[in-house]
Amino acid sequence: MSNSSNATLGAFVHRHIGPDEAETAEMLKLLGVPDLDGLIEQTVPASIRDRSSLGFGPGLDETTCLERLREIARRNKRFTSLIGQGYYGTKMPLVILRNLMESPAWYTAYTPYQPEISQGRLEALLNFQTLVCELTGLDVANASLLDEATAAAEAMALAQRSASSKADSFFVDADCFPQTISVVKTRAEALGWRLVIGDPEKDLAAADVFGALLQYPGASGQVRDIKPVIAQLHEAGAIAAVAADPLALTLLASPGSLGADIVVGSMQRYGVPMGCGGPHAGYMAVRDTLKRSIPGRLVGVSQDSRGRPAYRLALQTREQHIRREKATSNICTAQVLLAIIASMYAVYHGPDGLRAIAQRIHDLTARLAQALADQGFERINSAFFDTLTIQTGGQTSAIHERARAAGVNLRRIDENTLGVSLDETSSDETVRLVLAIFAPAATSSATADSRQALAGIPADQVRSGPFLEHPVFHRYRSETEMLRYLRRLADRDLALDRTMIPLGSCTMKLNATVEMIPVTWPEFGEIHPFAPEDQLAGYQLLFDDLETRLCAISGYDAVSLQPNSGAQGEYAGLLAIRAYHRSRGDIQREVCLIPASAHGTNPASAQLAGMSVVVVACDATGNVDITDLRAKIEQVGDRLAAIMITYPSTHGVFEESIREICDLTHAAGGQVYLDGANLNAQVGLCRPGAYGADVSHFNLHKTFCIPHGGGGPGMGPIGVRAHLAPFLPSAPQTGEIGAVSAAPYGSASILPISYAYILLMGDEGLKRATEVAILNANYIAERLAPHFPILYRGDQGRVAHECILDLRPFKDATGVTVDDVAKRLIDHGFHAPTMSFPVAGTLMIEPTESEGQAELDRFCDAMIAIRREIADVEQGRLVIEDSPLRHAPHTADDVAADVWNRAYPRAQGWLGFGAQTGSKYWPPVNRIDNVFGDRNLVCSCPPLESYAQAAE
Amino acid sequence: MSNSSNATLGAFVHRHIGPDEAETAEMLKLLGVPDLDGLIEQTVPASIRDRSSLGFGPGLDETTCLERLREIARRNKRFTSLIGQGYYGTKMPLVILRNLMESPAWYTAYTPYQPEISQGRLEALLNFQTLVCELTGLDVANASLLDEATAAAEAMALAQRSASSKADSFFVDADCFPQTISVVKTRAEALGWRLVIGDPEKDLAAADVFGALLQYPGASGQVRDIKPVIAQLHEAGAIAAVAADPLALTLLASPGSLGADIVVGSMQRYGVPMGCGGPHAGYMAVRDTLKRSIPGRLVGVSQDSRGRPAYRLALQTREQHIRREKATSNICTAQVLLAIIASMYAVYHGPDGLRAIAQRIHDLTARLAQALADQGFERINSAFFDTLTIQTGGQTSAIHERARAAGVNLRRIDENTLGVSLDETSSDETVRLVLAIFAPAATSSATADSRQALAGIPADQVRSGPFLEHPVFHRYRSETEMLRYLRRLADRDLALDRTMIPLGSCTMKLNATVEMIPVTWPEFGEIHPFAPEDQLAGYQLLFDDLETRLCAISGYDAVSLQPNSGAQGEYAGLLAIRAYHRSRGDIQREVCLIPASAHGTNPASAQLAGMSVVVVACDATGNVDITDLRAKIEQVGDRLAAIMITYPSTHGVFEESIREICDLTHAAGGQVYLDGANLNAQVGLCRPGAYGADVSHFNLHKTFCIPHGGGGPGMGPIGVRAHLAPFLPSAPQTGEIGAVSAAPYGSASILPISYAYILLMGDEGLKRATEVAILNANYIAERLAPHFPILYRGDQGRVAHECILDLRPFKDATGVTVDDVAKRLIDHGFHAPTMSFPVAGTLMIEPTESEGQAELDRFCDAMIAIRREIADVEQGRLVIEDSPLRHAPHTADDVAADVWNRAYPRAQGWLGFGAQTGSKYWPPVNRIDNVFGDRNLVCSCPPLESYAQAAE
Repeated sequence: MSNSSNATLGAFVHRHIGPDEAETAEMLKLLGVPDLDGLIEQTVPASIRDRSSLGFGPGLDETTCLERLREIARRNKRFTSLIGQGYYGTKMPLVILRNLMESPAWYTAYTPYQPEISQGRLEALLNFQTLVCELTGLDVANASLLDEATAAAEAMALAQRSASSKADSFFVDADCFPQTISVVKTRAEALGWRLVIGDPEKDLAAADVFGALLQYPGASGQVRDIKPVIAQLHEAGAIAAVAADPLALTLLASPGSLGADIVVGSMQRYGVPMGCGGPHAGYMAVRDTLKRSIPGRLVGVSQDSRGRPAYRLALQTREQHIRREKATSNICTAQVLLAIIASMYAVYHGPDGLRAIAQRIHDLTARLAQALADQGFERINSAFFDTLTIQTGGQTSAIHERARAAGVNLRRIDENTLGVSLDETSSDETVRLVLAIFAPAATSSATADSRQALAGIPADQVRSGPFLEHPVFHRYRSETEMLRYLRRLADRDLALDRTMIPLGSCTMKLNATVEMIPVTWPEFGEIHPFAPEDQLAGYQLLFDDLETRLCAISGYDAVSLQPNSGAQGEYAGLLAIRAYHRSRGDIQREVCLIPASAHGTNPASAQLAGMSVVVVACDATGNVDITDLRAKIEQVGDRLAAIMITYPSTHGVFEESIREICDLTHAAGGQVYLDGANLNAQVGLCRPGAYGADVSHFNLHKTFCIPHGGGGPGMGPIGVRAHLAPFLPSAPQTGEIGAVSAAPYGSASILPISYAYILLMGDEGLKRATEVAILNANYIAERLAPHFPILYRGDQGRVAHECILDLRPFKDATGVTVDDVAKRLIDHGFHAPTMSFPVAGTLMIEPTESEGQAELDRFCDAMIAIRREIADVEQGRLVIEDSPLRHAPHTADDVAADVWNRAYPRAQGWLGFGAQTGSKYWPPVNRIDNVFGDRNLVCSCPPLESYAQAAE
Repeated sequence: MSNSSNATLGAFVHRHIGPDEAETAEMLKLLGVPDLDGLIEQTVPASIRDRSSLGFGPGLDETTCLERLREIARRNKRFTSLIGQGYYGTKMPLVILRNLMESPAWYTAYTPYQPEISQGRLEALLNFQTLVCELTGLDVANASLLDEATAAAEAMALAQRSASSKADSFFVDADCFPQTISVVKTRAEALGWRLVIGDPEKDLAAADVFGALLQYPGASGQVRDIKPVIAQLHEAGAIAAVAADPLALTLLASPGSLGADIVVGSMQRYGVPMGCGGPHAGYMAVRDTLKRSIPGRLVGVSQDSRGRPAYRLALQTREQHIRREKATSNICTAQVLLAIIASMYAVYHGPDGLRAIAQRIHDLTARLAQALADQGFERINSAFFDTLTIQTGGQTSAIHERARAAGVNLRRIDENTLGVSLDETSSDETVRLVLAIFAPAATSSATADSRQALAGIPADQVRSGPFLEHPVFHRYRSETEMLRYLRRLADRDLALDRTMIPLGSCTMKLNATVEMIPVTWPEFGEIHPFAPEDQLAGYQLLFDDLETRLCAISGYDAVSLQPNSGAQGEYAGLLAIRAYHRSRGDIQREVCLIPASAHGTNPASAQLAGMSVVVVACDATGNVDITDLRAKIEQVGDRLAAIMITYPSTHGVFEESIREICDLTHAAGGQVYLDGANLNAQVGLCRPGAYGADVSHFNLHKTFCIPHGGGGPGMGPIGVRAHLAPFLPSAPQTGEIGAVSAAPYGSASILPISYAYILLMGDEGLKRATEVAILNANYIAERLAPHFPILYRGDQGRVAHECILDLRPFKDATGVTVDDVAKRLIDHGFHAPTMSFPVAGTLMIEPTESEGQAELDRFCDAMIAIRREIADVEQGRLVIEDSPLRHAPHTADDVAADVWNRAYPRAQGWLGFGAQTGSKYWPPVNRIDNVFGDRNLVCSCPPLESYAQAAE
């Protein structure tokens, strides 16, 4: 075994890591190495191996860990936050809390790239898109974005590339949320666009801009008529983007009906806790003419091989499909879990329920407005939905003081102005309390019922006509029906709670219950990201300690937790490099070298950070071609800004030359961005910051156990060496290089997951996890090598934490595709490995440390059985077109049909797998036709008749 | 609609009740009544209808309700309870907490009477039985009992009927837990057996007793050698029963190996919170020779129609199978959910993990023992596992005072004696703290590591050899594997989260998430039932208010929450009647009249309460035959103690004569026990206490939303009119008529469920629920009446909350059985209605108010489709033996087999149901052969080879 004996590992480590001691010994025996340490010596280059301790000590047991987090949580103060600005109190229906947000069937699912085993969450996401379309009055909505501010930045970019105007400026309504302005500013600056911030009615010269962003209602609460401004923009060939509050939209005329081309916003208040800033689902909807340019993921309806309607991702934009150096967005993560929660909130409440919630908030606000007016307070915004900006007459500090004493957070604007936003959790008592804060001597006029329908909204801004008429928003209104709907959808999907998901580069390891429990504590959930610092004391403690530990693990000196996805981390890291060079006067340093094998997001992020990309070749063994690297460095000369390199490489190998690559780059004045996607192969064994990298992002949703949530949330903090620390993204409004995400600490409320994981594993546990991840990958490689070519290996014949099976020879010989193998694995009850990345025609397998030998063997056995079916085609016993491979996945409709006229027996079709234990996973649809769907793009719930017709 | 308008109903009411307004209107239209009130007028006799309000006001919304319960919970004080006596701190593994205890797939399941759709929990229960067998060293264990004390009473009864000794006394070790002694005493007194309580080594005259109960280790902590006493008992033809701590048994020689015939106990400390006394799984194991007499449920292995191993309840003892007036036990509820939790705790820890936990507790105890001895404290028990009884030398009060101040509960025995029991949650710190409490001036000798293997256990009492060698206790030791095992098992079962469970008399309504959430709060879980009263302030408040509300609903004057099942409630109620008569000198009143249609538990409970049963006939319409009733009353004369009547009747009808029945009984000096099983048809409409009943039990796990948990926990509090109040079961050790359950408030920790339900629904909501339950039942009756005979109706043609379909005519004509229809419903994705109760050859359907019209229609459509298949047999198109009815349920193995040689098409077999939505439920086994299983009784995990053989 390794030099860390089992006794020093905490009890949790044995729950997290799959193979027990006996299995580990057996697997090592197959590999012919004496112990784990011996295996690691064959795998990790000695030149970077770091045997020093992380210094965390032993792992905590689960009880102690929860107690520790409970103590931290208790330090956060749960005030009544009426700050608004995109973050509001809300009530997640408890049936959704327990059976969706806290359910492994939902949160352990992967991104729905394999649509046949993802029909449940794809339906939920289609509901989300339908909801967004109807609220915004636009034609096509995507399946969520990271947050409102980054969605606004994406809207600006979309406007720039689609406007007929060739202007180079973008206008931003000064009444946008400050964090939105900050993120848009950061993006514009790197891309060289000028930003004009002002009052659209006064300061907008439409002819000078390619687009504008308006806020509806404004940050001040103002509900203004945006129609004239939009008309003006359109006349000048510019694009009108609107950031809108989706709850207000249940009462307000939709931006689409007022002419908007793009609408963005946050679905947070549809049942998702504020969570100190996230994660929440940002959204974007566009006019039909822009639909093929919309960034992010888009769910569409297509059909399966039987011609039945089936959902899948349309116009696929997953990482490797992003157009690399020609990219206009680096978005590849969505906020699937949060988008689904928001959609279910709408499904459960229905249009009348949503409207009632909004109406109630508005009525309370109207009463508060009246009462404040009665007390002589002037209001700045003439119209409103839920937010009032009040002139305090110099009393801001005094009022603020009283608010704090009463446990209430107001929005402090300046000494003469305060903002108040009510929300779903507000009540008569809230109105009474706020009134008492403003005017302690006031009589209780606020409690008098002075309601008048939509008193604060101008009549011509009121939404008319029904919305959300699709049956899905009407059928699941009792808890029983909602519970069953959630279960039905979950059952259609295959997640980590039923099978390993051996996705190379995506690291689907255990998301332990103990790590998930704190996430739904109100002490973490009910915190406004802009609440005063002393209310965030628990969070701050967690941030600080997590940053320290991430530094220890990575060898860096400072960490920023702000980026809320891996790609955002890349972007933020490159911005830091850019700012560093500029601070030294090296303005010309704007070339980023990227190896051909890189994640697709790498060049896209470089592009967004204002860099130009030069590709470095890889050699035949998949490593960076050092000769080409030297040539490219020489070629770009003092324009070299950075190299982006993934380590271990996307080929699943620890390249021996990593130190040399770093040294060459530094010698030429460049910085090394080390993509942290594969950090899980390094934790406890080597440290990027120590062997030459300057900056990395850490995918907390991979290495550090944040679940994939069916395709989001993610978290991509970055670590930097000391010289880059001054250039980390800072809190909005105060940052040196500006903000990259809406919230100062990104998706703060899921950080307890990664933090708990680190506490639970301790020094030795973290290291052991890495060792076993490498063991598991090598075990699979060893078992499958006799059957499939293993594409890349390190110098001593070992793969790192993943291995690539080359299917191209079979394709050439038999026509068997990667898809055929992937879909056939579904019949065996498995999620497919990563397909055709980093090399087309291959499967990349990453088992992680959490899978035990039994599950690894089950997978290997399935692959070997598939290999036999390939042999059937090779040897002419079957033709590929009528083979179980091509007909996969097999549905119950196939194998229980009255007539069977295939070339292989029924039993071979469905394999009899799991029948006796009731554990057979039956995909709800046959293989899905992607081309058909992209040609006939349908991205919101189609009318029910269309299903009936298709079924006929 | 009803006279309660929708506006007055709280938001939750619309979540709880299935049909919305439009559906309600449509359903009423089918029935031809104008509104709900009109329907109720046709259903509930005017003579008992009570239109007065319950006085609860409007229902709370979910947020407010949770806040209310949170406030209550906060009043409970979480001390470190070292009281022991059957209740110990423990750690439920979090993966089990979230994915079992908090998962609707587990907690909403019904008792596994339909084994084909219950293989998951039956496997878990078989694991439980295997665990108990191996711990106790006996041959057969049942699938749990209500608690340790009632299990001990059952052991006494089993001893009495199986001993060769004809003595009429039972010996009880004075070192048994006091609550055990109290419950056994109550039981013995009613059955006329003499109890001898004393020291078995001194006071036992084996020849005078039919059996004895020993505690191992004793309440004092003493681990004594019980072998000689057992030998003595056996010589005299008496039965040796042992109450044993299952955690201690991982270290101690098993009672079976020492000769015990019966072993009972509580599995609480296998991961189940103390919960102020329950629910927990009691257990019982017996020697092979006693296996056919074991009370409660027994899971056994049988085979399905393909000869494959399959689990089902063996020697079925469900209510209606209880041998009525010849019964020796009235047990029909088990603690399935808790037994499964305990079994999973063992599966997750494995034998080595369990032993390590026990060893750690013992080592801490040994160190404490040494340290106390060092401080001069004498110990009363020479040997120990986890409990020390210490002589305080008159310092008890002072020590106790210090303990309270330190947040520690010790067991106060008398002014010279205190008890301390350590547990899984104890640590070095606990030992240090206890030492400081006993001897504030002590130096830290306790923290010195003076451990010596099993220092407190005499060498010849130490367990030898391996146990729990079955693979199930070794395979699921990583969290990933445990998570998947739980999911796999849950997927095999069909629970309320996937389908309605239209079980007549069992009321499977919504168990709302908001009601379930408080159950797993530590403020309710970590409370010792014998903690000082001030620590239970929250519980007490809840008990008081719940009692008050149950009185208001039922019309009674007082309530006891102690009985932890419906049958226990019956028993307690009859004991109260018996004590009442005796208090008036009416010792001869010992006859209980019971209508022929009664629940099987009724006569069994009467038997246990020392009454003799006289059966009253029912007339052709299913009502009590008043003429026969008069005759029987006359016949028994002044021996009449009571009548037990179910209302609405088990025939699903509000009998018009209920008042007359009560009057006749009272006139003859008898008391009326009204079985509250069907109270859900009365809440808000009429009150048993007001129309003539004297006592009822309330099945909180039916009417008041406690989930069935797959077959338990249940709760059966009783309500009584004022004259019976002095005879309610009281707390153990202080009771007038003694205790009926181990804990003073039964299964206290699940009472928040029922309490929350009452708060959430309010006056009008509770009434509306009853009305809609009656509407739903009548809707089904109306839709199915053209296809199936409806067996009983009220005077105006209405059924109550359930209806009975008569299948006997079809049986006679075609051979189609109730089983055929029930199993065919599985193919349609339904749990069958209640079979052959109260009338053999019928199905009793109860939809509850929580099912919406869509689900009711889906069920009716399935029944009508089945009727068509019956017609196929009637009309000679199919023979029953080769019909889809007889082959039901259809497994994937059937319909996807290569060869199909049945008389109907494959598609008709599996119906294509749910295929396209991935919602098809595939039963894991074909129809199960009960007779085979009972003939070849296997009640613990069979070796894996046996499965393999059978599959061949």
